[in-house]
Amino acid sequence: MSAPAPIETDALVIGAGPVGLWQVFQLGLQDIRCHVVDALPHAGGQPAELYPDKPIYDIPGIPVCSGRELVQRLQQQVRPFAPTMHLGQSVSTLQREADGRWRVHTSSGQAVLAKAVFIAAGVGAFQPKRLKLDGIEGLEPAQVQHRLDDPAAFAGHHVVVHGGDDLAIDWTLRLLDSSTPPSQLSLLHRREVLQSDDAAALQRVRTAIDQGRVSLVVGQPTGLRVQSGRLQALDIVDTQGHTSALALDHLLVALGLSPRLGPIAEWGLAMERKQLVVNPSTFETSEQGLFAVGDINTYPGKKKLILCGFHEATLAAFAAAARLRPNERIPLQYTTTSPRLHHLLGVAPK
Amino acid sequence: MSAPAPIETDALVIGAGPVGLWQVFQLGLQDIRCHVVDALPHAGGQPAELYPDKPIYDIPGIPVCSGRELVQRLQQQVRPFAPTMHLGQSVSTLQREADGRWRVHTSSGQAVLAKAVFIAAGVGAFQPKRLKLDGIEGLEPAQVQHRLDDPAAFAGHHVVVHGGDDLAIDWTLRLLDSSTPPSQLSLLHRREVLQSDDAAALQRVRTAIDQGRVSLVVGQPTGLRVQSGRLQALDIVDTQGHTSALALDHLLVALGLSPRLGPIAEWGLAMERKQLVVNPSTFETSEQGLFAVGDINTYPGKKKLILCGFHEATLAAFAAAARLRPNERIPLQYTTTSPRLHHLLGVAPK
Repeated sequence: MSAPAPIETDALVIGAGPVGLWQVFQLGLQDIRCHVVDALPHAGGQPAELYPDKPIYDIPGIPVCSGRELVQRLQQQVRPFAPTMHLGQSVSTLQREADGRWRVHTSSGQAVLAKAVFIAAGVGAFQPKRLKLDGIEGLEPAQVQHRLDDPAAFAGHHVVVHGGDDLAIDWTLRLLDSSTPPSQLSLLHRREVLQSDDAAALQRVRTAIDQGRVSLVVGQPTGLRVQSGRLQALDIVDTQGHTSALALDHLLVALGLSPRLGPIAEWGLAMERKQLVVNPSTFETSEQGLFAVGDINTYPGKKKLILCGFHEATLAAFAAAARLRPNERIPLQYTTTSPRLHHLLGVAPK
Repeated sequence: MSAPAPIETDALVIGAGPVGLWQVFQLGLQDIRCHVVDALPHAGGQPAELYPDKPIYDIPGIPVCSGRELVQRLQQQVRPFAPTMHLGQSVSTLQREADGRWRVHTSSGQAVLAKAVFIAAGVGAFQPKRLKLDGIEGLEPAQVQHRLDDPAAFAGHHVVVHGGDDLAIDWTLRLLDSSTPPSQLSLLHRREVLQSDDAAALQRVRTAIDQGRVSLVVGQPTGLRVQSGRLQALDIVDTQGHTSALALDHLLVALGLSPRLGPIAEWGLAMERKQLVVNPSTFETSEQGLFAVGDINTYPGKKKLILCGFHEATLAAFAAAARLRPNERIPLQYTTTSPRLHHLLGVAPK
């Protein structure tokens, strides 16, 4: 099968989480249609993936909603702009073309040529980091998984969560909070120190470790002990180089779904502590026509909050419109009054 | 009657529009309670005052809502933090005390001493600019008004809107769009050039003028012609100094309810084109502990959009918390997971 022809578009949004969806909406108000790539098989990003049923209280004008509901609301909102979604595809390369456009390749072999690219990838647009151990594929998904769909599925089993950052912290809490929790829960991390942007979640996991409800195992997995096709234990090497075996029923690999850069780190962009440095008046990276919004960017005062991402995507859309239409004034118009915006939105208010 | 004792508080928010209400919410998440002053007799600011029934399409997660509904939603959202509202009071003075706090006086004689002040006054927190003509008070509200409550009330009458900025443009359109419009509509402005941040609205008024549906009268009102207690006409002087009389039934004064600074302009703050210059990482003005959010501030890339104001108020709350608790780390916590935030919000998610 030959590779499909490249898609040519004004705008490509990488990441279909809340901020990526809002990026689509704001580009739509600028009359810029776009394509969207996300590694997950569905839109919604982190809230849909990590906390679909948890209530969110700090979306302005929505006193409470679940992650799933927020995503549904945003999907409804972008509908007038009919973005072309490429789901279940991660981005493998991003390169500048001679004509100034960006060439993106996705994991399914699709090439996209875009005048402006918006990295809105808090999670999900890039391949989850896999644990590389001989024979691991054969154990998936029965005993090894790289995502946590249903915490209740592990009732009464010994579960090892491998990781020590946001995602591992989140999964540990979801398993602990399950009405039918695992009989034994271990957190396997390469060092003692856990870290998360969510200080409260981190503290809860630390407390659970202190209380013995979670075992913190420090070490790196080096091999799989399989008997009759069934995973019995992990070979572990600790920081002193000592090896041991960790018995388990299930291994949940939580190394890389949470905000992580994956291949972005190799693209040569200005970065600071693994975040993309942006100009906070345009949310453009150090590369012209390449924008970064949401959890992946950094600028003075940055807070990793969804509502801040909404602002970032909005200003990025204005800046991109100015780049795409250099000879036009890009006016500020209001959706309450602008016939042009009403036309774009497909509404005809009285 | 002696003046009431000064109120002492950590935070005072000037303006109870959407961004002011969101400021209250974000301060609440930082465990900072606040007082709120607004010149209007109700919360809601510009959307509640200028377009209560018009649909808004660009609040993230809310595909469509009216100005009134947005305000109701935000009022519900701030309820856990029970701000003390001082409505129908404008701010007359704002001064730094020797101890570093801010002293604010309101039009009703109330003094407030606050460690941090947030100017969220797109409209409504400051006294509307009045037209100063001898005898004008006696004609209010029967024939002269400084606000537009019900466009339908002017059916079949000759209405003069006095002003040429956002507010006058908005009122002109609301009167034109009324199902029972005035029989004659004049826009009285000191010069030919009208201006508004809303380019589409401005264009609609210009078209109405070209079509003769609105008469643009250039001049300044200098006197009122009253007969038997009834206003018959305005004396007008044009830019060449010629005088004339403009007959009318109703005068709607639209000089100063729209984003205007009023007394703020005299407070000695760093300003740019009548906007308060802020640091976009904290939304603090040139004065420590004095923040400006929403339509009244400016910074590189600024767009006067409600959703941007939400972001600004959020970062301002973090910055204010750091000012008020200089020896504490101000962590980023998430309302989905933080027991501390759940406690502050008065919720107990499972």
